[in-house]
Amino acid sequence: MSEDGSGVAAGLRESWLGAPQDQPPDKEWDDRLREECGVFGIIGYPEAAAFTALGLHALQHRGQEAAGIVTYDGQQFHTERRLGLVGDNFNKPEVLGHLKGSIAAGHVRYSTTGATILRNAQPLFADLGTGGFAVAHNGNLTNAKTLRKQLVKDGAIFQSTTDTEVVLHLISRSQKRRIVERLVEALRQLEGSYALVCLTNDMLIGARDPVGIRPLVIGRLGDAYVLASETCALDIVGATFLREVENGEVVTITREGGLESHRPFPKRPARPCIFEYIYFARPDSIMAGRSVYEIRKRMGAELARETDCPAEVVIPIPDSGVPAAIGYSQAAGLPYELGIIRNHYVGRTFIEPSQKIRALGVKLKHSANHSVVRGKSIVLIDDSIVRGTTSKKIVAMMYEAGAREVHMRIACPEIKFGDYYGIDTPDRKQLISAQMTPEQVRDEIGATSLAFLSVDGLYRALGVESRDPKAPQYSDHCFTGDYPTELTDLNGDTSTIGTQLSLLSDVG
Amino acid sequence: MSEDGSGVAAGLRESWLGAPQDQPPDKEWDDRLREECGVFGIIGYPEAAAFTALGLHALQHRGQEAAGIVTYDGQQFHTERRLGLVGDNFNKPEVLGHLKGSIAAGHVRYSTTGATILRNAQPLFADLGTGGFAVAHNGNLTNAKTLRKQLVKDGAIFQSTTDTEVVLHLISRSQKRRIVERLVEALRQLEGSYALVCLTNDMLIGARDPVGIRPLVIGRLGDAYVLASETCALDIVGATFLREVENGEVVTITREGGLESHRPFPKRPARPCIFEYIYFARPDSIMAGRSVYEIRKRMGAELARETDCPAEVVIPIPDSGVPAAIGYSQAAGLPYELGIIRNHYVGRTFIEPSQKIRALGVKLKHSANHSVVRGKSIVLIDDSIVRGTTSKKIVAMMYEAGAREVHMRIACPEIKFGDYYGIDTPDRKQLISAQMTPEQVRDEIGATSLAFLSVDGLYRALGVESRDPKAPQYSDHCFTGDYPTELTDLNGDTSTIGTQLSLLSDVG
Amino acid sequence: MSEDGSGVAAGLRESWLGAPQDQPPDKEWDDRLREECGVFGIIGYPEAAAFTALGLHALQHRGQEAAGIVTYDGQQFHTERRLGLVGDNFNKPEVLGHLKGSIAAGHVRYSTTGATILRNAQPLFADLGTGGFAVAHNGNLTNAKTLRKQLVKDGAIFQSTTDTEVVLHLISRSQKRRIVERLVEALRQLEGSYALVCLTNDMLIGARDPVGIRPLVIGRLGDAYVLASETCALDIVGATFLREVENGEVVTITREGGLESHRPFPKRPARPCIFEYIYFARPDSIMAGRSVYEIRKRMGAELARETDCPAEVVIPIPDSGVPAAIGYSQAAGLPYELGIIRNHYVGRTFIEPSQKIRALGVKLKHSANHSVVRGKSIVLIDDSIVRGTTSKKIVAMMYEAGAREVHMRIACPEIKFGDYYGIDTPDRKQLISAQMTPEQVRDEIGATSLAFLSVDGLYRALGVESRDPKAPQYSDHCFTGDYPTELTDLNGDTSTIGTQLSLLSDVG
Amino acid sequence: MSEDGSGVAAGLRESWLGAPQDQPPDKEWDDRLREECGVFGIIGYPEAAAFTALGLHALQHRGQEAAGIVTYDGQQFHTERRLGLVGDNFNKPEVLGHLKGSIAAGHVRYSTTGATILRNAQPLFADLGTGGFAVAHNGNLTNAKTLRKQLVKDGAIFQSTTDTEVVLHLISRSQKRRIVERLVEALRQLEGSYALVCLTNDMLIGARDPVGIRPLVIGRLGDAYVLASETCALDIVGATFLREVENGEVVTITREGGLESHRPFPKRPARPCIFEYIYFARPDSIMAGRSVYEIRKRMGAELARETDCPAEVVIPIPDSGVPAAIGYSQAAGLPYELGIIRNHYVGRTFIEPSQKIRALGVKLKHSANHSVVRGKSIVLIDDSIVRGTTSKKIVAMMYEAGAREVHMRIACPEIKFGDYYGIDTPDRKQLISAQMTPEQVRDEIGATSLAFLSVDGLYRALGVESRDPKAPQYSDHCFTGDYPTELTDLNGDTSTIGTQLSLLSDVG
Repeated sequence: MSEDGSGVAAGLRESWLGAPQDQPPDKEWDDRLREECGVFGIIGYPEAAAFTALGLHALQHRGQEAAGIVTYDGQQFHTERRLGLVGDNFNKPEVLGHLKGSIAAGHVRYSTTGATILRNAQPLFADLGTGGFAVAHNGNLTNAKTLRKQLVKDGAIFQSTTDTEVVLHLISRSQKRRIVERLVEALRQLEGSYALVCLTNDMLIGARDPVGIRPLVIGRLGDAYVLASETCALDIVGATFLREVENGEVVTITREGGLESHRPFPKRPARPCIFEYIYFARPDSIMAGRSVYEIRKRMGAELARETDCPAEVVIPIPDSGVPAAIGYSQAAGLPYELGIIRNHYVGRTFIEPSQKIRALGVKLKHSANHSVVRGKSIVLIDDSIVRGTTSKKIVAMMYEAGAREVHMRIACPEIKFGDYYGIDTPDRKQLISAQMTPEQVRDEIGATSLAFLSVDGLYRALGVESRDPKAPQYSDHCFTGDYPTELTDLNGDTSTIGTQLSLLSDVG
Repeated sequence: MSEDGSGVAAGLRESWLGAPQDQPPDKEWDDRLREECGVFGIIGYPEAAAFTALGLHALQHRGQEAAGIVTYDGQQFHTERRLGLVGDNFNKPEVLGHLKGSIAAGHVRYSTTGATILRNAQPLFADLGTGGFAVAHNGNLTNAKTLRKQLVKDGAIFQSTTDTEVVLHLISRSQKRRIVERLVEALRQLEGSYALVCLTNDMLIGARDPVGIRPLVIGRLGDAYVLASETCALDIVGATFLREVENGEVVTITREGGLESHRPFPKRPARPCIFEYIYFARPDSIMAGRSVYEIRKRMGAELARETDCPAEVVIPIPDSGVPAAIGYSQAAGLPYELGIIRNHYVGRTFIEPSQKIRALGVKLKHSANHSVVRGKSIVLIDDSIVRGTTSKKIVAMMYEAGAREVHMRIACPEIKFGDYYGIDTPDRKQLISAQMTPEQVRDEIGATSLAFLSVDGLYRALGVESRDPKAPQYSDHCFTGDYPTELTDLNGDTSTIGTQLSLLSDVG
Repeated sequence: MSEDGSGVAAGLRESWLGAPQDQPPDKEWDDRLREECGVFGIIGYPEAAAFTALGLHALQHRGQEAAGIVTYDGQQFHTERRLGLVGDNFNKPEVLGHLKGSIAAGHVRYSTTGATILRNAQPLFADLGTGGFAVAHNGNLTNAKTLRKQLVKDGAIFQSTTDTEVVLHLISRSQKRRIVERLVEALRQLEGSYALVCLTNDMLIGARDPVGIRPLVIGRLGDAYVLASETCALDIVGATFLREVENGEVVTITREGGLESHRPFPKRPARPCIFEYIYFARPDSIMAGRSVYEIRKRMGAELARETDCPAEVVIPIPDSGVPAAIGYSQAAGLPYELGIIRNHYVGRTFIEPSQKIRALGVKLKHSANHSVVRGKSIVLIDDSIVRGTTSKKIVAMMYEAGAREVHMRIACPEIKFGDYYGIDTPDRKQLISAQMTPEQVRDEIGATSLAFLSVDGLYRALGVESRDPKAPQYSDHCFTGDYPTELTDLNGDTSTIGTQLSLLSDVG
Repeated sequence: MSEDGSGVAAGLRESWLGAPQDQPPDKEWDDRLREECGVFGIIGYPEAAAFTALGLHALQHRGQEAAGIVTYDGQQFHTERRLGLVGDNFNKPEVLGHLKGSIAAGHVRYSTTGATILRNAQPLFADLGTGGFAVAHNGNLTNAKTLRKQLVKDGAIFQSTTDTEVVLHLISRSQKRRIVERLVEALRQLEGSYALVCLTNDMLIGARDPVGIRPLVIGRLGDAYVLASETCALDIVGATFLREVENGEVVTITREGGLESHRPFPKRPARPCIFEYIYFARPDSIMAGRSVYEIRKRMGAELARETDCPAEVVIPIPDSGVPAAIGYSQAAGLPYELGIIRNHYVGRTFIEPSQKIRALGVKLKHSANHSVVRGKSIVLIDDSIVRGTTSKKIVAMMYEAGAREVHMRIACPEIKFGDYYGIDTPDRKQLISAQMTPEQVRDEIGATSLAFLSVDGLYRALGVESRDPKAPQYSDHCFTGDYPTELTDLNGDTSTIGTQLSLLSDVG
């Protein structure tokens, strides 16, 4: 889901009582792409909320800002939405205690907007007259602004600034009788990416957009069914993987009728987001039948093959570069060493008291392991470069620690285009590879050498011989500019990422 | 405004991050009728929010549970809504600081629902497509449930459980072009009581229901206009009283055009709520040209004339009985004495740790002043009796402190009927005078004698020779059962106060 | 007790985790003398802590900043100390629940220091080797600084900045065997005022300084004994008044042995603090056999006799002037009217957002009741004038509301000297009557006329024919400069109130 | 430092306002030895507090429960002590802002006691009459209880329950003139381990116990001097390593005089704590000239040599087993793989809602990476086994994920004895290797095979040919039972670890 700070055309700036318990991470020190959201649902299990909390905990890497759970206990819906980590909120009896019922849906959320407001937390809920309905959304709609404008004109009152609320109003206004029909009628008006978990008083619903950009899997736990963004959330609750919800599929699950599949869209080939494999998914998740960890090792191995260099040790940038570094080390036959130590206790909110200390920057989070680095030619492995700010600091830290040569190797291609499907990419002006050649980037970050994995190398790591330019097997637009859907709110102008659509695009 | 906990037919029970900072008062120890709400608005004054905070502070007696302010700064709307007292929240730079603009509307709220949720706090805001719109409501709609059901059926999504949101949806769905026309179209569908202060990006609007149940006055402060529930809110900001918004009147105020009056309803005589004079309004307010303090003194004087008794001292039940006791004392020629001391530091949340201590009950808030009471025949003055629970405890406390005789005198008639216009009256079964004769009440509370002011005595105190039964000059249905409006949601069955409509009626 | 911010000669400035829940009142708007503290103890009652909480609640007017309770359950001592009101803290099961035992001591505290730190909250506790010992102190030691300096030199480590900790160290270092002997040895070294309630594992101890400046009474509740600063705290728990602890008396109470009296000091006449009668004690308390309320009425009556004036109505400055105003009204035969309405909801922290609003000042707390004041010659009654700042604002407010003449009458003499015994008096430069004649004060506050009760009038109200200049019956040094004890820490220089001793003197 | 919950002989149980912001970790899921504390000091640097915060942040792994900083600004001492992480507290202007001065001392603390009370947080401060004095302590005194008893008998009042306060009282009572002499007089009475950083108004002092159990290093930053537990804290502030404070050495540093060394104890060989190398120190720290990371890799390599086994992959238990696993992998020539994924977002407070979910246990923190483990014979590397509870769960998780064989290899010898020098070792009954043979442990945890590094292998990894049984080069008593100091409080009975001395021993 995304939120549109300016979506309220009238421009309401709202403050909210609850101060965020967890500040958004400092952008400059933490130069990563940001997912997005995670969704989870369960039907037919007595302690549905507790298991949903566990599932969301396993999906916490997909969003740390807010979490929410909705349940239905046979008579009433219950909901809790909190800022902060699942494990800091949904472990307390006073929170879990009243989330009664054997059917539940949950959501974890990441957002980049300065002021995180609780009312944007999900699942969203509405009384549809025919009954209650909750929706949790991972993804981003590329025509939300356009739809919202029309809905407001027709008298709808929006309470959040998320694109997800558009879905709710479309359903609410549908004149169809059955909830699935109302949902399908709404989905047909959407454009962009979505993996939805919805809840009614007797049904759990999963839906994935026509090209299946964001992931959604189905699991079984005894008689119960589980929906989750990744298989790691099935593992934690002890559920077994059944299959993925397919692109363009809507599944409805009831206690009596079990799982039913609906295909409201014309059949199209899937194009799942390639960044799930590169960075977002947890390494122990299985996606499309493949281990994410093994794929990342293969990216490292392909990288070694394509860009090998005469270094003495392989050093991962923790933690994102670790699997690729292991793969690189094994393929290149070079020793793998912890040349950078990560401080796990870094508060998300460590703000430096003065300019002098600010310069220390990256050291709050990472420190050089001098004994490994001193006097060596090293190859540093990272999964990606976004702005290049952290890379620059880490390269400098390596030299400071005595490195002779610092060869930077990136386990994905150059990121040149923004994403509009739930990944928080910065303005194109800030994407270093959209502005500079690899040589310029190398000079900017100060490395001895720099190389990226090729697009084909990436596809090979994914087990595909090569990218089909006419029908790309993945959503790889950040590297190629080849977007899988219409971008109505943008009016086709992707050069202006971060301007026209900035508020819609900056959250997933 | 009122809130309908069950209004969401789907039955969502929601928890909210922010714990109430101020618990609702303990009903048993504090046997008062509960107002309701207070509204305030200002246009044309640079520090609009700061003055609105002051105005709301002066109206704090009308609602202590939550407060909110919306402003418009020429470009953007800003809003802050907080649980707790105005003076505990709207004094801080981080709250007031960003409430920029020279036009503002505010609200203080009282609610009896167990869980006070911030999203029921007002003013409510909506983006109407044509611009932002905020509404603050004092009163209660008696057809809100019926209207809400239809709106939900038509696809509206409700986010709060207040009746006020119905108004917002009616406006939002109006196809009229001008905001006043949209508002009027909405008002025409309403039934019940309302004093509204609304805000757009260039206009402040005040509106009062066709019989003017809840109060609303207009003041001037230099070039600025002020709207407020009572004149005491004009006094605190230094505004001068201009006139009341009349029953059935809608006033619009713009910076350029000044004040314009609209009369969208057929002309009817006003019937303002008589309880404003008896209990709700602040004694220093002027209502319909009369000092509330003086009227209360006259109620005491009428009471002395009608029900005088051979006591030695006049003792007010603090603080509500004070003005009537002074009037009684002066009319009866008996000394006025502080026989009961009020503890101002009583936490609203003092919960007794055991049954033994519970019995101490009323002593946490009041204590007997033995030296005044011992050996005396006293006359205790209170403004009203609702359930009789506090009266019983205070009479007992007086005897315990050595009183010889305890004559109870009540400065209003017997409360026999519920209110549906914004006063929190208990279920009729709990209204002691709906269940018992005065003699039975006297016995129940243990007084030597008990007498109530007559309805005509009350009218005389208000300067009216006598009540006109065909066209009563006030909304006095709590004494007479003569309701000033339709009660659609109730289906005409007022015997069941607190059941069918309970959730709508319990908040003002 | 007092606290010495600079007492730690080394000058430690400490911050504390817990933010004050209740800010100290704004000095300028609330121009009162500030008490000081309240103490309470009970032995032989099963729910000792719950009753102590009730007793402290009844003593809340003596200190609103912090409260603490210590209990002993036969095996272990338990303690809770909290910032804020008793009723906001000591009502919760998680606080009261573990304060087990049938013996308890408690304390409420007022402090003027900017940063209220929890470690200055009382009762203080120490392990004396021979067992635990807790002390709660009302009063102020006038040689605490001198004693502390010597104790630190001898190796004592102070943890709080209160004078009370000096008592604890003196006891701790005593080589006597029995705890009473150790306490007496400590008391013999003290100078100034104290009413102490102490607790050991089998004994409750009460002690009052040689001239009995601060009050302490003994009550019985079945088999249990109670100690409290005022009788109103006996009333709330249902205890009956037994007698006062006399000046210079130490009482020890055990479950087996009952109450034992000790007189470690040479016999001297008592000189109780006269301000307890004027302002500090609750009106329903009985002191030295006299009702505080009746005495205040008599002060008003004496004031009428001494300083009557041709006004039309008598108006109290709420709430402190109310009893004297009733007495004045009855003696002068003038009607008593509420010409000033107090807003009970004023947050203690209402801070005005701008200079313009600041000017509104006093209106946040008080408002003029125009209908009473307009066109009248009024007599305003207050209990005292300290700096004169509030008086000036209220007089102005009366004129603004239309008063023709404003006659100010003060129910106590001119305050010309500081207190060093637990009352927070400002620097002498700020005491308006130490700097100006009554005529000058009248002009400064803008009243038509101004008169104070004479010292002899005050003594007459107290039932004493006249003040004995050689052996004054009360501690009346604030009017007369005749201090009842040595002032060692001051080196005899009382002209410099608020400078040398400022940090010791500003808290009681 | 340690704290003695029962040290107050009188048995005071105290609650404290500030609820711990960070609960102590769940023992069962997190079966590690617990350090202890970290200390830091700086003199001669303008922003002393900010740098101390950075230094403490780098030492956060040594204690996450509380942190404190004391500074002196030339006129006044300032202190802040907070529960929770450095980066969550000492980053705020309102905290750092007033910690003025160019001299500072700080402390991070770990404690196992249920109720963490702020008053046990360090540095402790006392006014010594001659000036202020602050002390921060890493280590544990083995005669603190005995000394405390005598001090209380002599009139000392203890305010915390830490052993460190004993040091303060000994200094406070010393009759020597100079502060170093007073400190030395105190140190001579101590027994056990300590690395101290002390602060006066013109001096920074470092001290290490006679055998140098806990570490302390000296660094230079321009003209400023730094003291810190580990070199990683020098690195973060950009200081260069000068030398270690030697065992039995006291160093005093003034701005004018620079560093002076004192040797108040008879010369003895050092015996630093061997667990710093195994587990506590950060891998990038240099201790006694050796890289901790390299030593851990050598432990892994020695382990491979001593206990190699026919597995297919080497899997570290994250994060503590990582360096040893890399060393093992390189020495054994087996691939290093991430077979266990750690969830970094696990709230410290995740409490499972039901027994069923409790069984999921370890999965909240770790998950199996199926693709690596399935069908394989794996060797799991951990740094130590304490209770064996986590090992058992992880072994089970590996089998569940499809491992064919699970060979467990531990990079240190069997832990058979408790520590009394600042490491939180459990009761000997809970030390699995004190109760079982390796074969029994293997069966208990369910591994295919299990082997520990030998004591001599450990010494070899440390660069020592073999352990000298007459003069062991390290404090290795947890493996050998050979304690480096007297254990007075224990009366020589080390069989009862965790009983007699439990409260003193459980915190470092």
